[in-house]
Amino acid sequence: MRIVLDAMGSDTCPGPEVEAAIQAARAFGEELFLVGPEKRLRPMLEAQGGAGLPIRLVEASDVITMEDKGLKLALKAKREKSQTSMAVGIDLVKSGQAQAFVTAGNTGGALATAFFRLGMMQGVERPALTALFPVKGGSCVVLDIGANPMVQPEDLVQFAVMGAVYAAKVQGKSNPRVGLLSNGEEAGKGNDLVKAAFPLLQASGLNFIGNVEGKELFGGEVDVAVMDGFTGNVLLKSSEAVARLITDMLKQELKSSPITMLGAALASPAFKRIKQMMDPGEYGAAPLLGVDGLVFIGHGRSDAHAMFNAVRVARQAVQADLLASVKSAIQEQVAALERRQQNIEKESV
Amino acid sequence: MRIVLDAMGSDTCPGPEVEAAIQAARAFGEELFLVGPEKRLRPMLEAQGGAGLPIRLVEASDVITMEDKGLKLALKAKREKSQTSMAVGIDLVKSGQAQAFVTAGNTGGALATAFFRLGMMQGVERPALTALFPVKGGSCVVLDIGANPMVQPEDLVQFAVMGAVYAAKVQGKSNPRVGLLSNGEEAGKGNDLVKAAFPLLQASGLNFIGNVEGKELFGGEVDVAVMDGFTGNVLLKSSEAVARLITDMLKQELKSSPITMLGAALASPAFKRIKQMMDPGEYGAAPLLGVDGLVFIGHGRSDAHAMFNAVRVARQAVQADLLASVKSAIQEQVAALERRQQNIEKESV
Repeated sequence: MRIVLDAMGSDTCPGPEVEAAIQAARAFGEELFLVGPEKRLRPMLEAQGGAGLPIRLVEASDVITMEDKGLKLALKAKREKSQTSMAVGIDLVKSGQAQAFVTAGNTGGALATAFFRLGMMQGVERPALTALFPVKGGSCVVLDIGANPMVQPEDLVQFAVMGAVYAAKVQGKSNPRVGLLSNGEEAGKGNDLVKAAFPLLQASGLNFIGNVEGKELFGGEVDVAVMDGFTGNVLLKSSEAVARLITDMLKQELKSSPITMLGAALASPAFKRIKQMMDPGEYGAAPLLGVDGLVFIGHGRSDAHAMFNAVRVARQAVQADLLASVKSAIQEQVAALERRQQNIEKESV
Repeated sequence: MRIVLDAMGSDTCPGPEVEAAIQAARAFGEELFLVGPEKRLRPMLEAQGGAGLPIRLVEASDVITMEDKGLKLALKAKREKSQTSMAVGIDLVKSGQAQAFVTAGNTGGALATAFFRLGMMQGVERPALTALFPVKGGSCVVLDIGANPMVQPEDLVQFAVMGAVYAAKVQGKSNPRVGLLSNGEEAGKGNDLVKAAFPLLQASGLNFIGNVEGKELFGGEVDVAVMDGFTGNVLLKSSEAVARLITDMLKQELKSSPITMLGAALASPAFKRIKQMMDPGEYGAAPLLGVDGLVFIGHGRSDAHAMFNAVRVARQAVQADLLASVKSAIQEQVAALERRQQNIEKESV
């Protein structure tokens, strides 16, 4: 197995990536591709004792930055000769030299590069960006968190199928519970999209538990939650912002007197564990689902620990043969849809 | 000035409402209508020393429960002879005997009752449910949080106008900053609705600062944030759920050892202040904007303190002549829209 790690992704790259590559090579004993400017990477790798490890540096002279967008980003993603670390890295997956690509870089850049270079999985209309939300008692696979601001009801079913396969194969959850994010738990609640997707999800053969709100999602009552990318992005960003607001307020308040400061010091192990639970780095990276290859995207703020976890998650996905499982689940869903369509046509004859 | 208080709204009604009425009558020295089953209310009022206060009990034999929905709710809201506490209370506003109605009951019920009995404000297409979000350094007026799962771009402009008047007149914010919730701060981000609303808000004459995400909203960078009711409801519910998740996890973790428990005990003043800041009861109630009368809706979990705050906020709105201000702002906006329309037509001739 070979995993490709984009050395130029995280906000403080390539430090965390080089360190994570060394940790991963030691932990897993398998070859790893580290993609970026060799001149910068080799001295760092050697200085940290990574010279003898099975880490293969792959030259990429260009990079997609957080500022790249629009046409510039599209060209960097699409051009055959693109030398960005994402393009070079994803081409290694495309050519079969590696089984998964991991980056903590520009999410839109990773999405576009994967879309143009790997193409879509057969039968999938739109790729979905996934996030693993920390929820009560574990985590929830949430998609789409921003690839598609607007989708069709059928897309939500495909997101659900792909998310459920991820929860089952990589997270080891049997018969994962799927929820449709809505403005109320009752059936019948929702905008036009949600109302149209509801019966399709009911007929999908998935373990669909119906509409869910924040309460059910963060309460750990679903393993997978689906929504359009506009709503998912609002959900992700606002959840992060609320968590930050509470944490900041608490810090501020705890500093307000010597007594509360002492209390905070004594309680610090509890705070640390909360921080760890809420830290996206603990989950490492989340998959981009629907493209024809395994791509994992981590948070821009990832440190070495987070990048190591990202490689770990990507390995789990390769070991579980996630790509083949998603493909076959999508094929089944497409076939079932066709059968239902034929039955409807027969009945109406 | 007379405020009407629905005695049968909160989850533990009518206790909190009776207590709040007594507190409010003492604090403000003005007559207050308390609407509900007189037989139940009078003994409670007298037992708590409220007999000599200017609290006028108004009989309402029926109630809208949290379970009422669909046709049943619509009938309770609309029928002329409806005896629900909401219908009786809102009729007092309609007839001019009172200037504002306050309830902690079924939000959909309050919305429907207000809509059918007060009607819409001239020029307003849709009513908007408002919430006051605790944000860094203060609060943000957020609308719509659920009255309209789907809206037109023009509705978002009206929500912005109404929200800005509320922020200015009741919260005393000069030239309130208005943001459009989107999946990215950059202009051009958004679904079709957001993209269409953006230029309308730019041309609205409001202090429109552009698209905002959770970071800006909870960071206190806007005074008013507008969105469709589906997105707003997801935002509200998920924010509450995240806050609850963090609080619950923290409680759990703090109990994990005697040391952290001691720390938590010492730090408890800080925790109390956070709880207070996040408590919707501190804001009392949020206005239903767009209907032709002042209606304030508090949280179902409101206690007497929250209900007292709700009456206080409603008084502020009456004193600031919120209704007239919103009406004239809407008229201006409608007139400006017509002028722009005429100019466009002239130019195209």
